[in-house]
Formats: sequence, C-alpha cells, structure tokens
Amino acid sequence: MTHKLPEPMLRAFTEAEKAAKLGEVPVGAVIVDKLGNILAVAGNRTLQDHDPTAHAEMLVIREVASKLASERLVDCDLYVTLEPCAMCTAAISFARIRRLYYGATDEKMGAVENGPVFFAQPTCHHKPEIYGGIGEQRAETLLRGFFKNRR
Amino acid sequence: MTHKLPEPMLRAFTEAEKAAKLGEVPVGAVIVDKLGNILAVAGNRTLQDHDPTAHAEMLVIREVASKLASERLVDCDLYVTLEPCAMCTAAISFARIRRLYYGATDEKMGAVENGPVFFAQPTCHHKPEIYGGIGEQRAETLLRGFFKNRR
Repeated sequence: MTHKLPEPMLRAFTEAEKAAKLGEVPVGAVIVDKLGNILAVAGNRTLQDHDPTAHAEMLVIREVASKLASERLVDCDLYVTLEPCAMCTAAISFARIRRLYYGATDEKMGAVENGPVFFAQPTCHHKPEIYGGIGEQRAETLLRGFFKNRR
Repeated sequence: MTHKLPEPMLRAFTEAEKAAKLGEVPVGAVIVDKLGNILAVAGNRTLQDHDPTAHAEMLVIREVASKLASERLVDCDLYVTLEPCAMCTAAISFARIRRLYYGATDEKMGAVENGPVFFAQPTCHHKPEIYGGIGEQRAETLLRGFFKNRR
C-alpha cells in the first residue's frame, strides 16, 4: 500500500539521500511553520562537521531558533525520516516543537518508542503531538542500503 | 564536611556563576584531556545564543570535537556542575567521553540518575565512568539562589 507523503517529509527524504551520498547516516529533517512553510532542511552532518551532536533534527532546530531569535519554536512542526534519539527528543521538547512526524522506528537508538521513551518521562516537560510511521518503508530501505554498502 | 574540588570542577563553577550573572540557568562544564589539560570551558548559553541546545555540556563537546577534528573525544573527561539532561547524556555517549564528573543531582531534568537513566538503556552504546556528587552542595546553593531571584 502506498500513500502520498506530505511535502516536508519528501524534502526530508531528499536530505537523507544527500547525506547518504556523503557517507553520513542517511537521516533528513525539515521544520515548517504553522502555515506549512519550510523554515529549515538538513541531513545528518556528524562526520562533515566533526560534531557528534550534528544530527539532522538538531541542525534544523538550531537554524530555526537562530532565525526566529528565540529558543522556543512555537507552532513549528518537525519532520524526520527516522525515530529521533534521546539527544534529539530532548532538544525537540526544549524547543517546544508542536508536532513531530517521523518515518521508520529505530530500535537501536530511538527514544520515542524505544529505550528511554523520553516524552513519557516525568523529566519531560513538553510533549509534541506525535505521528510515527510516515514513509516508514522508504526510510527503512534507505537505511538498509546504507549499512549494507558499509560492510 | 568540605572537600577540595578538582581544578576542572572549580573552573566549571566559575562558568556556572558567570552564566547566572547573564540570566542563564547556572550550569558550567569543562572538558579535559587524559593529562588533565583543559580543552574547553562553557556555561549555559541558551538565551544568549537563541539556541535550545546550548547547554554547557553540548558547547564544550562541540568545541573539543571541532578542535580535534573528530566526532569522538577519545580519552577526554567531562566535568559539569549539574546532572546532565537526556540531550546531554546522549551527546556525552556519542562523543565517547571517558569519565563524567557532576555536581548536584537534578530531579527535574536529569537523565543519569533520574528520568530516562540514559546510560542504563539498551539504546545507549557507550557509557562513561560516572562520578556524581562532586561539589554537590555548592551546585545546589547556586541553583537555589538563581531560581529564588527569578521569582
């Protein structure tokens, strides 16, 4: 069964594919405002930037916060091709992201449904609306291809 | 009972106090190499930088990774005045920090002993040696003073 993906998720996949070509883990992220306008797009850049915190989600959050001159991204939604990790879920919470849309689940590193299940913790003080499994199959295929090529 | 604090923790407190004067949550962090040389110092800068990810720990990790041109901070130790949150614990793990020293526990946001207890999760793939309660009382006094002044 195929569903048409929302435009921001398609852009996130484009970023994930670009990241893969550069040898990065293929994850892409996009932030939109409440009207759906795209405010930032990024793929993972941990290797290129020599920055262990340069996950796609962190990069778009930092870019939009800088543009808005505010550490709170009120009424902004984040699209990411893979379930965010503990670092990114906490950053999403701190940034007050309104809605989180993600693709494949990540049993190894994920922190939304897996591991810390961060948004359900008493130490989490803002929980976005969460929509998982958006373009799941495409995200899984992309990741599998990437890790297969690295072996 | 008073213990003399290790030099890097004293520096972390100086950074925390500077952050407090700028209206930031008073947390400071320092990274040292295996010989104990200080590689980076920072206080929280989320408000100044308009960056929800600009916790003291993140700033020193990013600075040292950039200096070393490596996303892995092999044989580096991190000192921070407060128990790190979920974002920072995950970043500490990704950066392969060798030893983590921290001051007061943080029941509200901490992720080492509280909430996600991140380093004990199956989704955590590197756990530093952990030493808590280093200068705990001083860190607590600093935080209490800060939040009291804000009310």
